[in-house]
Amino acid sequence: MRKIINDPVKVVADALRGLAAAHPGLRVDLEAGIVVRADAPRSGKVGLVSGGGSGHEPLHVGFVGHGMLDAACPGEVFTSPVPDQILAATAAVDGGAGVLHIVKNYTGDVLNFRLAADFAKDDEDIEVATVVVDDDVAVQDSTYTAGRRGTGATLFVEKIAGALAEEGAPLEAVAAVAREVNERTRSFGVALSPCTVPAAGRPTFELDPGEMELGIGIHGEPGRERVKAGSANEIVTAALTAIDADMPLRGSDTLVLVNGMGGTPLLEQYVAYGVASSWLADHGVTVARSLVGPYVTSLEMAGCMISVCRLTPELLRLWDAPVQTPALRWGR
Amino acid sequence: MRKIINDPVKVVADALRGLAAAHPGLRVDLEAGIVVRADAPRSGKVGLVSGGGSGHEPLHVGFVGHGMLDAACPGEVFTSPVPDQILAATAAVDGGAGVLHIVKNYTGDVLNFRLAADFAKDDEDIEVATVVVDDDVAVQDSTYTAGRRGTGATLFVEKIAGALAEEGAPLEAVAAVAREVNERTRSFGVALSPCTVPAAGRPTFELDPGEMELGIGIHGEPGRERVKAGSANEIVTAALTAIDADMPLRGSDTLVLVNGMGGTPLLEQYVAYGVASSWLADHGVTVARSLVGPYVTSLEMAGCMISVCRLTPELLRLWDAPVQTPALRWGR
Repeated sequence: MRKIINDPVKVVADALRGLAAAHPGLRVDLEAGIVVRADAPRSGKVGLVSGGGSGHEPLHVGFVGHGMLDAACPGEVFTSPVPDQILAATAAVDGGAGVLHIVKNYTGDVLNFRLAADFAKDDEDIEVATVVVDDDVAVQDSTYTAGRRGTGATLFVEKIAGALAEEGAPLEAVAAVAREVNERTRSFGVALSPCTVPAAGRPTFELDPGEMELGIGIHGEPGRERVKAGSANEIVTAALTAIDADMPLRGSDTLVLVNGMGGTPLLEQYVAYGVASSWLADHGVTVARSLVGPYVTSLEMAGCMISVCRLTPELLRLWDAPVQTPALRWGR
Repeated sequence: MRKIINDPVKVVADALRGLAAAHPGLRVDLEAGIVVRADAPRSGKVGLVSGGGSGHEPLHVGFVGHGMLDAACPGEVFTSPVPDQILAATAAVDGGAGVLHIVKNYTGDVLNFRLAADFAKDDEDIEVATVVVDDDVAVQDSTYTAGRRGTGATLFVEKIAGALAEEGAPLEAVAAVAREVNERTRSFGVALSPCTVPAAGRPTFELDPGEMELGIGIHGEPGRERVKAGSANEIVTAALTAIDADMPLRGSDTLVLVNGMGGTPLLEQYVAYGVASSWLADHGVTVARSLVGPYVTSLEMAGCMISVCRLTPELLRLWDAPVQTPALRWGR
């Protein structure tokens, strides 16, 4: 196993120790297993909490900060956070205006966030709204989900809802914009290699060097089909065709993420973005904003995911609003 | 080959097309093979030019922008840029105050930058100063160098010299601070897997899954020794011990980079940073600033590199100055 770890079962705690040391602007509570903005809770501001299995960094811990999340609950690698963790994060960021839970659509995540929301309401009198992110067009149901999986749209939802919360909007409005972003976003991923969960010590699946998996999930669960490995043109065209078939893009102003899955060099991500940019122009789609890089990863998996959000002027304004987190920063 | 490319021999041009589409703030001249700040040349400002083989992204193309480089010259993968490229970049950023070449110490890079500097002086009457970066303590000479290799310090040199140039300092002062940063920085890298150059199609070296290469270069060239793969503690301790033996760190205020080589997940980079942070505290070293992420990569190589710069108050001030590039942004 080619990993930089000490103990395979303590890798998340060890990483959180590093995160705490590297980012004094975050409050990392190792016992509770949560990462919180240093200035939380802020009175009158809706708190944003997300989380999920670790191994997708910088999602979510790298998106905690001004203009984005107030707290993240990292579970063990590819494992949902437990309700106590989510409850602790919810309580830590509640400034009296309620808390929004941003949940990727995986069965364990949805269940544990729901339990935590119930506890928060019943025991702590905190109002909680929930948005479930399910942007992946590849498969209807998967190993880990009923319905579509949540992938790249999560970043868009966290950024845009975070911007609106920062402006002091009430919980219903922040939840509504989060749902709107999810509804207007579609994603599709392609894997060229598997990844290895430290505690398991073996690859999540086998993939011949000459093959690729179309419509991969972010845990290496099966996608839509396994085909002969293709060129960047073929990979990107497959992804954008699948997205466009599900949500026609022509005539839209879009926000586009070309996301490295962890083991694909930035050089290749830019090759993919170049192809995507041409395809979109050829199909009458305007790219208003773009992001290229490893933002929603699957450990060291090789591959890329493309996410496209059909913007409105208001969503664009909120995307452009200042953000200051470890992994996303601009405008301030 | 698990790569997202179209044509192995056109991968750099294809990536530059994507870079141009993704970053309207950069001027990408595909014919000349250079990436230039959109507002260059700026009258009276020293121009900063760097470059080298591609495959180390975001270095250097991702560091072009306000407060850092004025231009980058990306060569083919792991191949020096040619003198014409460097000359074109030098001419494109010359605002009458001279140009600083920041050159990693590889034989081809040093030679081609020197030729370009001579052409610029003789044919275009542009004053050029050069700083050669050679921070890698692993080996005295390598496959590609006489003397030490240039690695992570390049980022520090580009950021800090870029900040001083942005303030309008003259060429001698910008060159002097660049040399000072190089002299005060040491780096050491460890590889857990090789990488594959697209045009070659096979790994740069062979490494058994149970082995690691200590003191690896950024092209997969041999390092100091090959040993049994160790824990994060062992890897980080080996790197910091080698750095400290070469440049005693006790009592220093430092800037620390824990750099992913491309194929190591961010989760593991934070594990490594946690170990580094403890080691430095235990050895009487203060970390004033830190950076964790894949900044100076070797395609999809697994591993990490640690760079430590002994700061002065002035270097810290320049590090903190605003920067706006695709890969490094803060403070504005």
